[in-house]
Amino acid sequence: MDALEMTLLYDHYGELLTRRQRECFDLYYNQDLSLAEIAQELKVSRQGVYDNLSRAEAALRELEAKTGCVRRTMQIRQAARKIAAAADALRDHPDPAVREQARQILSAANGLEE
Amino acid sequence: MDALEMTLLYDHYGELLTRRQRECFDLYYNQDLSLAEIAQELKVSRQGVYDNLSRAEAALRELEAKTGCVRRTMQIRQAARKIAAAADALRDHPDPAVREQARQILSAANGLEE
Repeated sequence: MDALEMTLLYDHYGELLTRRQRECFDLYYNQDLSLAEIAQELKVSRQGVYDNLSRAEAALRELEAKTGCVRRTMQIRQAARKIAAAADALRDHPDPAVREQARQILSAANGLEE
Repeated sequence: MDALEMTLLYDHYGELLTRRQRECFDLYYNQDLSLAEIAQELKVSRQGVYDNLSRAEAALRELEAKTGCVRRTMQIRQAARKIAAAADALRDHPDPAVREQARQILSAANGLEE
């Protein structure tokens, strides 16, 4: 699993990790530190950092496998983009009633992409 | 928290409970059995059933508090209904291009409500 996917899982499930797992994850994936640098920063062994990262990644993967929240979020964003594109095509329609519905649809679709 | 909300949490996070917690939850919330009936069914004490149910409920609440997946799902369904209602108003529009965009929007919005 690539770093982008890991970060996405972390955004959803990070609160369910231990504090130490979150520290290691953040320093590795968000601050882009090496294992050795994280070990120095947290005053633990490099192996300790590795173990915490591995457990964090395994926990995030298990949470996703069992709940599918991130998969669903991705599907929703995709649907929201399709909806927004279709509504966008109606924004400048000569019929003001169409423009108003398009505006409402775009507003709701933008809320979905957050 | 009422039974409907509990069931919704269970639909999202049920796989993260232990097997025994799932059994108790299912018999209580889905099959509508009493604690005494569940105890008899599973050949455990009534207290054991109660403890498993309590832990299951606490775990589900914690998962929701820390990930917010169900809250987000509810917001999405609400947005999907708004989008569908607005698109529905355009379904019989005289302009065929409007009808086509409305059809695409409805199709994507229906996917969101699942």
